Amino acid sequence: MLAQAITLAESLRTEDQILANQLIEELLPLTGKSIRIGITGVPGVGKSTFIETFGKLLTTNSKKIAVLAVDPSSAKTKGSILGDKTRMEELSKDPLAFIRPTATGATLGGVTDRTREAILLYEAAGYEVIIIETVGVGQSETAVRNMVDFFLLLMLAGAGDELQGIKKGIMEMADGVVITKSDGENLKKANQAQADFQHALHLFSDSVSGWKPKVITSSALEKRGINETWKLIQDYLTLTKSNGFFEKNRDQQNLVWFQESIQLLLRQQLSKSKELKLKIKTLESDILGKKILPSRAANQIINDFFKA
Amino acid sequence: MLAQAITLAESLRTEDQILANQLIEELLPLTGKSIRIGITGVPGVGKSTFIETFGKLLTTNSKKIAVLAVDPSSAKTKGSILGDKTRMEELSKDPLAFIRPTATGATLGGVTDRTREAILLYEAAGYEVIIIETVGVGQSETAVRNMVDFFLLLMLAGAGDELQGIKKGIMEMADGVVITKSDGENLKKANQAQADFQHALHLFSDSVSGWKPKVITSSALEKRGINETWKLIQDYLTLTKSNGFFEKNRDQQNLVWFQESIQLLLRQQLSKSKELKLKIKTLESDILGKKILPSRAANQIINDFFKA
Repeated sequence: MLAQAITLAESLRTEDQILANQLIEELLPLTGKSIRIGITGVPGVGKSTFIETFGKLLTTNSKKIAVLAVDPSSAKTKGSILGDKTRMEELSKDPLAFIRPTATGATLGGVTDRTREAILLYEAAGYEVIIIETVGVGQSETAVRNMVDFFLLLMLAGAGDELQGIKKGIMEMADGVVITKSDGENLKKANQAQADFQHALHLFSDSVSGWKPKVITSSALEKRGINETWKLIQDYLTLTKSNGFFEKNRDQQNLVWFQESIQLLLRQQLSKSKELKLKIKTLESDILGKKILPSRAANQIINDFFKA
Repeated sequence: MLAQAITLAESLRTEDQILANQLIEELLPLTGKSIRIGITGVPGVGKSTFIETFGKLLTTNSKKIAVLAVDPSSAKTKGSILGDKTRMEELSKDPLAFIRPTATGATLGGVTDRTREAILLYEAAGYEVIIIETVGVGQSETAVRNMVDFFLLLMLAGAGDELQGIKKGIMEMADGVVITKSDGENLKKANQAQADFQHALHLFSDSVSGWKPKVITSSALEKRGINETWKLIQDYLTLTKSNGFFEKNRDQQNLVWFQESIQLLLRQQLSKSKELKLKIKTLESDILGKKILPSRAANQIINDFFKA
């Protein structure tokens, strides 16, 4: 039933979306009781292994967990991430776990919208921990940050001390950092990276939540760092629920969702007209050719839009 | 004549803005030849002293420089920043320098728009270095980052090693960091801070411009760090002009200006109707009360908007 509801919510057909919205609105009183966790990291960082091990820890403690993958690259095929179930073989067989890649639409707004709705459906179905997984390339992380309670960044200790492909700006969103594959020959590098990043995060920290981001080292081989991560998240929840940030943040996220939806719908209206889209292209090239002031070009678009 | 043109561009009257836009559009071929520098830092960091000393260095080298102050707090009075001329007494008397606080409107969009237009007017009037000054509290820095070539962050070495009031996210926009008041008793702390931040910036760096942000220590008392800052900016320009980033970035900024102007005009249309504004308020409270799905609330607003 959950799978069907999510399919309905993800459908691009207007009538399906109306139905899905009605359903979710009926369920609203049942939502909001989960812990929403964003997990990001570049391919190769060991994200699937980490999530599988982390997820098994939770299900062993009788927690129902859901994993949603958001992948902007799959926008091209409008399909889902292949092989998600094989990526997390054990977890996908676990009756307490639900793994589902989110089929992403062509726009980020699309991704955002339907993922948010999927979260609510999972919550209404009694899932207690919801993990939203992204690939750490900077396109969807900000959107995901706006829909989770805790944002976890997975990293590898680099050959040098650079970040492994993580975009600037993602680091600063992190509530926690896990350095993966911290075992064997990597251990020394990982410990050094932990110290470096802990210090850097401290320098950059001015969090309104009152939380100081922490860096953990982990090893899937040695099953280290998984319990610590869960404890870190517990500490975060204890703090932010007692100082009121948790609720305030969720309220704020809902208002942002509202504002973003309005913007999205307006953009959709604008791009409905082929003529207008063509005119935008022409004006863009005039702007680059210094023939028209960008603000005046915008005026022309808006005038045309309301005339039509 | 320049002052009059800027007053016209800053006017909130529609007819003035039309006239200003026509003027600026005529001048477009003369624009774009300056170096646009954003300078930010919290009150007390020594921003005015730094800008005055830096400005004097440039005017001594026969460069015409303009200083625009963007202060979101002045939005309340719709007035200008008091005492700007007394803040930079020497520079304000310099015939090669033009200091003007930008009167900011109530919206960030407003700030953005008119500051951009002011930049173009200064450029057309032959100003070679344009400094946009902000207060480092996070509201206007992103907007300013989108209209300058080089973004400079001024900081104090802290009592501990924390950042002095700089919002997370501002650091990551910086192309250069200057640690001010690096003299006397502060010197040791300042040098330590320089090493710390240089390392942190290195960890976080993945710049598309190919540039690695640098940290400089400076002292207004001892006139240190000013030449170095100018050299740093020169190095940045040499690199980004040779690898094509400079032009690409400016083009991108103009397209963002276009997009932002469209969004701004749409928002203005939305907020024109008192009924709609009231309905948004009601829907917001319904959203927080879990009575309506944010995306569906947005649908209602858009439907009402296009009906009206």
